[in-house]
Amino acid sequence: MTNESPVSPSAPAPGFRPQARKPRGFPDRRFDALTAETRLLERIAAVYSSWGFERLETGLFEYADALGKFLPDQDRPNEGVFSLEDDDGQWIALRYDLTAPLARFVAEHFDRLPRPFRRYAFGPVFRNEKPGPGRFREFLQCDADSVGVADAAADAEMAAMACAAIEAVGITRGDYVVKLSNRKLLNGLMADLGLDSGPAADKARLIVLRAMDKLDRLGETGVADLLMAGRRDESGDFSPGAGLSRESAEQVLGFLRAGTGAADRGAALAELAPLVGPHAGAEGLRELMRIDEVLTGLAIATDRVTFNSSVVRGLEYYTGPILEAELTFAIAGESGAPQRFGAVGGGGRYDDLVSRFRGEPVPATGFSIGVSRLAAALAALDQAGETAGSDGPVVILALEPGLTGRYFAMAAELRACGAAAEVYLGSAGMKAQMKYADRRASPLAVIVGSNEAAQGIVTLKDLKLGAQKAREMTDHAAWRSERPGQFEVPEAQWAEAALAILGRSPAR
Amino acid sequence: MTNESPVSPSAPAPGFRPQARKPRGFPDRRFDALTAETRLLERIAAVYSSWGFERLETGLFEYADALGKFLPDQDRPNEGVFSLEDDDGQWIALRYDLTAPLARFVAEHFDRLPRPFRRYAFGPVFRNEKPGPGRFREFLQCDADSVGVADAAADAEMAAMACAAIEAVGITRGDYVVKLSNRKLLNGLMADLGLDSGPAADKARLIVLRAMDKLDRLGETGVADLLMAGRRDESGDFSPGAGLSRESAEQVLGFLRAGTGAADRGAALAELAPLVGPHAGAEGLRELMRIDEVLTGLAIATDRVTFNSSVVRGLEYYTGPILEAELTFAIAGESGAPQRFGAVGGGGRYDDLVSRFRGEPVPATGFSIGVSRLAAALAALDQAGETAGSDGPVVILALEPGLTGRYFAMAAELRACGAAAEVYLGSAGMKAQMKYADRRASPLAVIVGSNEAAQGIVTLKDLKLGAQKAREMTDHAAWRSERPGQFEVPEAQWAEAALAILGRSPAR
Repeated sequence: MTNESPVSPSAPAPGFRPQARKPRGFPDRRFDALTAETRLLERIAAVYSSWGFERLETGLFEYADALGKFLPDQDRPNEGVFSLEDDDGQWIALRYDLTAPLARFVAEHFDRLPRPFRRYAFGPVFRNEKPGPGRFREFLQCDADSVGVADAAADAEMAAMACAAIEAVGITRGDYVVKLSNRKLLNGLMADLGLDSGPAADKARLIVLRAMDKLDRLGETGVADLLMAGRRDESGDFSPGAGLSRESAEQVLGFLRAGTGAADRGAALAELAPLVGPHAGAEGLRELMRIDEVLTGLAIATDRVTFNSSVVRGLEYYTGPILEAELTFAIAGESGAPQRFGAVGGGGRYDDLVSRFRGEPVPATGFSIGVSRLAAALAALDQAGETAGSDGPVVILALEPGLTGRYFAMAAELRACGAAAEVYLGSAGMKAQMKYADRRASPLAVIVGSNEAAQGIVTLKDLKLGAQKAREMTDHAAWRSERPGQFEVPEAQWAEAALAILGRSPAR
Repeated sequence: MTNESPVSPSAPAPGFRPQARKPRGFPDRRFDALTAETRLLERIAAVYSSWGFERLETGLFEYADALGKFLPDQDRPNEGVFSLEDDDGQWIALRYDLTAPLARFVAEHFDRLPRPFRRYAFGPVFRNEKPGPGRFREFLQCDADSVGVADAAADAEMAAMACAAIEAVGITRGDYVVKLSNRKLLNGLMADLGLDSGPAADKARLIVLRAMDKLDRLGETGVADLLMAGRRDESGDFSPGAGLSRESAEQVLGFLRAGTGAADRGAALAELAPLVGPHAGAEGLRELMRIDEVLTGLAIATDRVTFNSSVVRGLEYYTGPILEAELTFAIAGESGAPQRFGAVGGGGRYDDLVSRFRGEPVPATGFSIGVSRLAAALAALDQAGETAGSDGPVVILALEPGLTGRYFAMAAELRACGAAAEVYLGSAGMKAQMKYADRRASPLAVIVGSNEAAQGIVTLKDLKLGAQKAREMTDHAAWRSERPGQFEVPEAQWAEAALAILGRSPAR
């Protein structure tokens, strides 16, 4: 509040009572979620940093024209983004990803940046879309990008670093895979199918790409239906097809099959070779072979980064190699049946995104991790359990108003030894204060009432031991008389005794 | 990019080249600034956490009516905030501080929260104002608040915790002070002056409060002018006065003088006692005495938290004790003359902010640190220098395209030992790559060209030693022939030698 306006005479209209509610799709997050998320970001950042990537944070707003129209589904300006008119009449918009602001930043400071410019960034991004379960309008991304290198070695670096980041957060090898393909292969295929230009081809191409992307879910038959006349699903809904001939559909399916059974990436790419055309496709294949070479140098085999021709990636701006990181372990799906967790990140080469500002080629490639999705995955794996059930602060009960200063001094003493501690505040009775300690997941309550003060003692309640003993006892009267976990100690020894209960030594 | 829309056919209009620029007042921040800021936030968060405060993060948007109209200077809705109409016709706005979202959150979840609910939060806040030097439209705040306790002990806790947070980031005792007052004292004073209600009184009251706030800058004479007929400053600009009589102005000045020379808070409050009226003023004084009692229990003397009746705080919502943290060391001001660094945080009691949602009293008090201001202060103190000049990553030069895999494997070897390392990417020559290493503040360049590969050696360039030697040498020819800091080592020992230069042991 240091940047505030001067004293203001305005106040809400008397009697107006706003409703305490928040806009849809903007989640509140509390301790456990934030702790898991922070640990995840710290570990990913440590990996990126050790690979020589530099942290960058841009403001949340960009000019709408600088963001471009890569996101919108329809051809309406600002669809899908939160935008507003600035006081000078220009439209500004909240970033919908971390790539567009990077492109603007690089174009703006082009001559002053080292090249390659490797940066990582994390923070909230915004989508003005209908929110739903697990679908938010504000969510966290964590991106790494390298700008200024056309060599596919930079794409290989992205794939390798994605593996390192995913493993750093606690996903073990075998529980994830980074799937690799190349937009140029797809462009070559589309040219072979005669779908490389014109409005009708644009529409059919979209259907073909979306169908390919659904191979995992629909299988070859479902994809073939979508490639040709269309497909009616179990619910009776009909999705129109791309109108390909059976022969063309077979060509697409052949492309999708290429390398699926191969022993390693090299063999998979060798299977693909006869299927790619001479121009875009061949170039795409060469880039993938270069990526294979670097990954092999890093001893990253096909169990971690695998070629998969069904990878499409949604965003229109990709121009070369594309990546998708998928978690392969099963979780219970909506129907209860086990299903793969699915994608937690993706990326690829986008050589035109910086170029559009500068009118000269500026190659770039990147990878983005969906932090919220990954956090959910870790929770499913119970890896986030490292903090779940962790202790709250020691609670010093506040029983005598005249002793408040002493209560605070006692809390300070524990803090000086590295323990979290707080003084209960308010005039509630002992029972309510003990209930508060319980809600705070406190391991220890410290009691100095008038009796204790008069006798020069402190009562300590070991709440974990107490809870354990209480579970073992069946007799309520015995529990009341024994008061399990409760000790009286002389004033001079209270801190030492408290720290012993917490499992801490007195000196920090 | 995992939450993305399906493949889109839209693309920017051909030939359109947007300008690479960002909206005013939304700063980009790079490595050094971010590292300093992150360290600062981590240290403050560790303090808050050890005092039993729980981290909370709310979404960046709130309903405009839930934010209230505490910020606007004029009585226009949404003035000062970034707001837009949601798809359901309701207005949503970006938060302008962290207090209003907390009030909404507490009101929304009132029955499920422990009370006191102590939480801390940090993140960006937004002000739709004219940006200027050091004045941004997006900036970071870090707040701690405790909701549900009317006892001034909670305000004392805020003051004590503010001291702990400021010291934790590296400001030493004596270099800061937390100034303490109470809105109720001011309300009592205004009532004494006959300025407690009515539009004319509102206007005069504002002028009086703003004048009091300027005591440090204008001195007693300047304040007296503003309290009475008005003041003409050095530039000739005239500020209208509050129109008080000389007697009333003297009363205000007497209030401002109270306790200024006192040995401790208790003595200062005793000096104040005869000046406060029977109602609001007396209650305010009692609360300050309670705060003094708790702080004294914590051994926090008047050198750290001091009573200061000129503290006003801008935001209209404060209802009780108010706090302002000021750094007292001098920095060079705009004119070059030394001046105090000034405020880096503030806060106070705001008992009405949650109540307005619930229609029942919900006491609350908090403290907010201006993170960017504090980071600037630390930079001025050269405390942030802990990272300034820190090493960048080792750079493995990329001289032979066929060796890329090996370069990456070498970088991985260093990383496995805890060193940051990157492979240069691109086809630049040796000189340009060495320049890149320099820009990245790299401590070491690793060179494997065709010669090295043929001879089974690796060339290491200790860039810090090289720079030092180069400074010592005056003869360019000698420098060229000696190549200071450059060593050739057998392939098998390269990593060990590299780690020795970095001052690291080979095993992590």
